[in-house]
Amino acid sequence: MVKLENMKNISLSDSVINLDHGDPTAYEEYWRKISDRCTVTIRGCDLMSYFSDVNNMCWFLEPELAEAIKELHAAVGNAATEDRYIVVGTGSTQLCQAAVHALSSLAGTQPVSVVAAAPYYSTYVEETTYVRSGMYKWEGDAWGFDKKGPYIELVTSPNNPDGTIRETVVNRPDDDEAKVIHDFAYYWPHYTPITRRQDHDIMLFTFSKITGHAGSRIGWALVKDKEVAKKMVEYIIVNSIGVSKESQIRAAKILKVLKETCKSETENFFEYGHVMMKNRWEKLRGMVKESNVFTLPKYPEAYCTFFGKTLGSYPAFAWLGTKEETDLVNDLRRHKVMSRAGERCGSDKKHVRVSMLCREDVFNVFLERLANMKFIKSTGL
Amino acid sequence: MVKLENMKNISLSDSVINLDHGDPTAYEEYWRKISDRCTVTIRGCDLMSYFSDVNNMCWFLEPELAEAIKELHAAVGNAATEDRYIVVGTGSTQLCQAAVHALSSLAGTQPVSVVAAAPYYSTYVEETTYVRSGMYKWEGDAWGFDKKGPYIELVTSPNNPDGTIRETVVNRPDDDEAKVIHDFAYYWPHYTPITRRQDHDIMLFTFSKITGHAGSRIGWALVKDKEVAKKMVEYIIVNSIGVSKESQIRAAKILKVLKETCKSETENFFEYGHVMMKNRWEKLRGMVKESNVFTLPKYPEAYCTFFGKTLGSYPAFAWLGTKEETDLVNDLRRHKVMSRAGERCGSDKKHVRVSMLCREDVFNVFLERLANMKFIKSTGL
Repeated sequence: MVKLENMKNISLSDSVINLDHGDPTAYEEYWRKISDRCTVTIRGCDLMSYFSDVNNMCWFLEPELAEAIKELHAAVGNAATEDRYIVVGTGSTQLCQAAVHALSSLAGTQPVSVVAAAPYYSTYVEETTYVRSGMYKWEGDAWGFDKKGPYIELVTSPNNPDGTIRETVVNRPDDDEAKVIHDFAYYWPHYTPITRRQDHDIMLFTFSKITGHAGSRIGWALVKDKEVAKKMVEYIIVNSIGVSKESQIRAAKILKVLKETCKSETENFFEYGHVMMKNRWEKLRGMVKESNVFTLPKYPEAYCTFFGKTLGSYPAFAWLGTKEETDLVNDLRRHKVMSRAGERCGSDKKHVRVSMLCREDVFNVFLERLANMKFIKSTGL
Repeated sequence: MVKLENMKNISLSDSVINLDHGDPTAYEEYWRKISDRCTVTIRGCDLMSYFSDVNNMCWFLEPELAEAIKELHAAVGNAATEDRYIVVGTGSTQLCQAAVHALSSLAGTQPVSVVAAAPYYSTYVEETTYVRSGMYKWEGDAWGFDKKGPYIELVTSPNNPDGTIRETVVNRPDDDEAKVIHDFAYYWPHYTPITRRQDHDIMLFTFSKITGHAGSRIGWALVKDKEVAKKMVEYIIVNSIGVSKESQIRAAKILKVLKETCKSETENFFEYGHVMMKNRWEKLRGMVKESNVFTLPKYPEAYCTFFGKTLGSYPAFAWLGTKEETDLVNDLRRHKVMSRAGERCGSDKKHVRVSMLCREDVFNVFLERLANMKFIKSTGL
């Protein structure tokens, strides 16, 4: 008799696994364990108005979410929140577009160039091109960008897709027309050592990548300049008249629990995430080393102020390369692994982005398939 | 000793009341009464993935919301849902932009003209201009529009701001380049008689204006053409990677209760809403008649298939006009009533849009202030 467990493995081992998107289902188990403490109950008459706080410039931001965001950043030490406007968005996706829109609308001339250093988050290309705006223009790789006039550099650190720590590469420090948006989606202790309290003009964060609650579509921006924050709020009003209140109050509850448990020995989510990611990365690195075909970036160790010790980086995506002259995304597809093509990230065919945040059984199937590919490669097939 | 109740009235009677936006707080009392039946409980580990249903083209649509939408339309009889794609959005605001984007991207030449018959929903202007897209262009009033080439007509029925029943006014029935988006935000029995089961290519609905749950930011589109639906889904993916799952499951629950109670004698929400709106409109019409200064549109009665009797229309907004040569929005502002200027809706200074969906005490203060204005007008001050 075939056991149910085996049947599940058979079915999974036969199906296509999708590591193209970064659906962060890896953390479900943790939240299942402390699920009750994070439960929210919403009655029929709750949260009906468009307005959360008429006295806040961002009037659709629930005050308890603003509070939870400030407390979490204070506890983790990864970003300054004082003297800043908090703008909530339908994920950091909406906020990134709001920020590009805001900076462009305040620029002296248009279209404003938008750049990011390759390899970059491929979605930036779609976000800045799909509406064919006359206000800004995607100019691609920031390395080598030397166009005159106003520009916006998107800096993702740790970087998506390659996990490196990033700073601006187009450096025009005295240029008033130089603007930067810092995307800190992955600047959390389970992915990378927290080495400093970030303090930039526009900083984006997303609930999805901290805790894994991607379905809630909650992100926030910490913005220094009042006019920029105001323009971002205006963008979100026209784009969607604010942000789901249900998601906001649930995010507030979960971020609060995250903050309360983040110094705990047994329930620390960041510790849980760190151990899981480290474990996955060690397995993947072991496989890559053995294969002699694949490559992965190396990350320096650094002292993490949150964990109080020196640690490595364990990014949410693996930037997988190959030593062969091949189209890696197609090779993987033939082995039923969907990944994101390096070319979409401004890089080459020999690289792909692979999500490290899938469920454990999917991750193990991925490793198996990679091992099989190694065998095929080494025999030259 | 001053009673608390009186203090509240004193405070309200002194403050600015905002009837510019259509925050539908009028219905809170109803939902408070049956609140427990609509309660949703969400555990920490629920709704984490980006995906609701990988087999649906609109993979971020929660299946139980799709089900509730279909059942409600069937019970009310206001729209056909069979052989259609349901696309969920962050309010119908996001969906309207998704539809304009989708139709434009499929048009032979760009920019595609976008028009609506005046007086129109002022937000359409902002929605179609704020990103300065090269794909479409707001061309204003549909009356008199005769530009060649592809165009999109936005038809809101009952109309926002003036409550009239609308059809297309640019009629090019044999023109393949003629596209229509029907915004049926207010085509529900508490506002207007349901005279037919609507059956158009693209129909937009919003949770906000049915039940008053504006904070949830949930809307849906019923779309006949597969390619259009697909492009709308693509727009929402790039715009916000889907729609809040928490809001979707709460909307599903509430729409289900709405459907279950909509034939009830004692708990029928539409009956409740209809009685309330009728009452407010009668008070307002009484005031306007007495004033001899203000004007309101008249609506024909019609047989409502939902209520099974002949009824009038009681729109969510009052399209208030004046017989005086004056700037009505400023007159009202001086009397501490915020309204939306007729000019923003493609009309004139003598008209304003006033929300009829505010809380009862605010509505009564509005009537009082209108009565005072009448007095000032009649003495020529």
